[in-house]
Amino acid sequence: MSEPRPIHPVILCGGSGTRLWPVSRKSRPKPFLPLIGEVTLFEQAIGRVAGDARFAAPIVVAGAQHIDLIEEQLGADREHLLVIEPMARNTAPAIALAAALLPEDAIMLVCPSDHHIADEAAFRAAAIAAAQLASEEWMVSFGISPTHPETGYGYLHRGEELSGGFRIAKFVEKPDLERAKAYMASGEYSWNGGIFAFRAGTLLEELKTHRPEMADLVARAATEGRRENSRFHPAPEPFAAIEGDSIDYAVMENTSRAAMVPADMGWSDIGNWAALQDALPQDSTGSFVNGQADLVDCRNVMAMSDGPRISAIGLEDISIVVSGGEVLVTTRDGAQKVGKLPGAVNQ
Amino acid sequence: MSEPRPIHPVILCGGSGTRLWPVSRKSRPKPFLPLIGEVTLFEQAIGRVAGDARFAAPIVVAGAQHIDLIEEQLGADREHLLVIEPMARNTAPAIALAAALLPEDAIMLVCPSDHHIADEAAFRAAAIAAAQLASEEWMVSFGISPTHPETGYGYLHRGEELSGGFRIAKFVEKPDLERAKAYMASGEYSWNGGIFAFRAGTLLEELKTHRPEMADLVARAATEGRRENSRFHPAPEPFAAIEGDSIDYAVMENTSRAAMVPADMGWSDIGNWAALQDALPQDSTGSFVNGQADLVDCRNVMAMSDGPRISAIGLEDISIVVSGGEVLVTTRDGAQKVGKLPGAVNQ
Repeated sequence: MSEPRPIHPVILCGGSGTRLWPVSRKSRPKPFLPLIGEVTLFEQAIGRVAGDARFAAPIVVAGAQHIDLIEEQLGADREHLLVIEPMARNTAPAIALAAALLPEDAIMLVCPSDHHIADEAAFRAAAIAAAQLASEEWMVSFGISPTHPETGYGYLHRGEELSGGFRIAKFVEKPDLERAKAYMASGEYSWNGGIFAFRAGTLLEELKTHRPEMADLVARAATEGRRENSRFHPAPEPFAAIEGDSIDYAVMENTSRAAMVPADMGWSDIGNWAALQDALPQDSTGSFVNGQADLVDCRNVMAMSDGPRISAIGLEDISIVVSGGEVLVTTRDGAQKVGKLPGAVNQ
Repeated sequence: MSEPRPIHPVILCGGSGTRLWPVSRKSRPKPFLPLIGEVTLFEQAIGRVAGDARFAAPIVVAGAQHIDLIEEQLGADREHLLVIEPMARNTAPAIALAAALLPEDAIMLVCPSDHHIADEAAFRAAAIAAAQLASEEWMVSFGISPTHPETGYGYLHRGEELSGGFRIAKFVEKPDLERAKAYMASGEYSWNGGIFAFRAGTLLEELKTHRPEMADLVARAATEGRRENSRFHPAPEPFAAIEGDSIDYAVMENTSRAAMVPADMGWSDIGNWAALQDALPQDSTGSFVNGQADLVDCRNVMAMSDGPRISAIGLEDISIVVSGGEVLVTTRDGAQKVGKLPGAVNQ
């Protein structure tokens, strides 16, 4: 048996995190914030695929406005390739660009940079299983074991067993609560966590089949682009002409090669303040405090401040976030709507 | 019939308003803040007894630390006497000092400066009725018609009818909710609003009877004090020696001359943020906003800010107050505890 091929991490930095306003801002969005612990989500994403011979140097795909943050957080020494998108075109073009810059036979592991994974060993085990399936030309999605009947995610319905994973029988759109509970009870459904493994050539072939125009434009953006040391600038004209789409819609839901590896790794997309609170430690009242805060008669309160003291009395299941001269107070349900607030929209 | 004697307003400025922290601060406490409308509570208290020939120039009793605020808010033109207490000794000495500086036969109307009265005409009518009873040597308290079974106030139990008022059969301490409901249902009880009318000589006689030591020290503080234009400085040594007490405990609950005039005048002591909200106008969701605030899916929320924007989602019956670098978020019940917060205590 030959040495396993190295896995090429592709770290996507497009997450804007507007539901984590007012901490997440256009100038420093969610991936570049230390929301859990001392290091940022981006640094965590890089760290998960570092220090292990199975992983090659990462390809980071990001917008031009975040280059400085990324290079600062990567550190001076880390070998990497930074692909700089001239504008946002969703995940399919970003992933396809990375594929076009890799050898056809390379195995890519596509990771969002704005998620949290508590169990890194479980992540690596799933990554190695996914890479094996990808080398057999499967288009592999990480299937996250649901921990609650979440209505905010898409689900993967597990099909026939493969070696180290399963075929995906069906991609399911965000369900209502009733259905989410049934999915969870059945044990046959996983969350679609947005983490993928592909053989670069397979991805590009599938894109050509299902989105031929996008495939052509990405190929041009790659071949006509220019590399400057560790930075790659896709050609802006063909890239701008791409009609953006997610990798799920563009490829995964159309291919006959969709597979999944189960992953039970303490995953959270930290999609809003309530999700962040769930991923943070709790004190004896179920609360979490970061910064100066006095909580009296409170339960399950999250209080975060970058300066002004927060004083709270009698609250339950409320998040209070004070950042950059903005004060946000929301219920758990309300946390979904933060991105639509005037303060978040008119940054 | 002779001309009615003028009524001498005595405005007490001792209210600290710690439950209205972080807006009310030691350096600018509750009376000197425009909590309702454009003018401060002190300015409202002064305005209620101005521009009417029945009222003489006011006597204002206050601590030395608030002289500047008071003289600024009185304006340059208004005739007044400012009695400057060297230290706080509760209401009985403050009122007795004012009495000692008035002719024996003068009628005093004692008004806290940190209450709100919506119906000024009803206030003046009650004041004139109270002054008439006071001229007949009654010690008169305003009996506020209860609007809800409040457990935070003392109550007056109405006795036999007098001309323009009633004897007070009994002073009742703060009741529990059960009892407060029974009081309200009976129609025989009023809130003790802390507004009084006395003949100066009667008050001093009663004080001599029930608190002879306090009466002596007040007399010395008055006679040995010094007047500078419109400022009166009581002698500090005898004043400091006074054992402070409220006018209720020192005199009203002991005298056989206690009377009350009923007053239904939209009174509120604005004792905390919930009480303030009740006295403020409401929008269609029952909420009130002062400063920059975006409320989404909120009901009965009060949001006040001196600068930073407040964004709130999904809240009900919550007060959010942002002032001077402090952020307070409290339920209605919690509003009672604001004065005990570290921020309020350690000013």
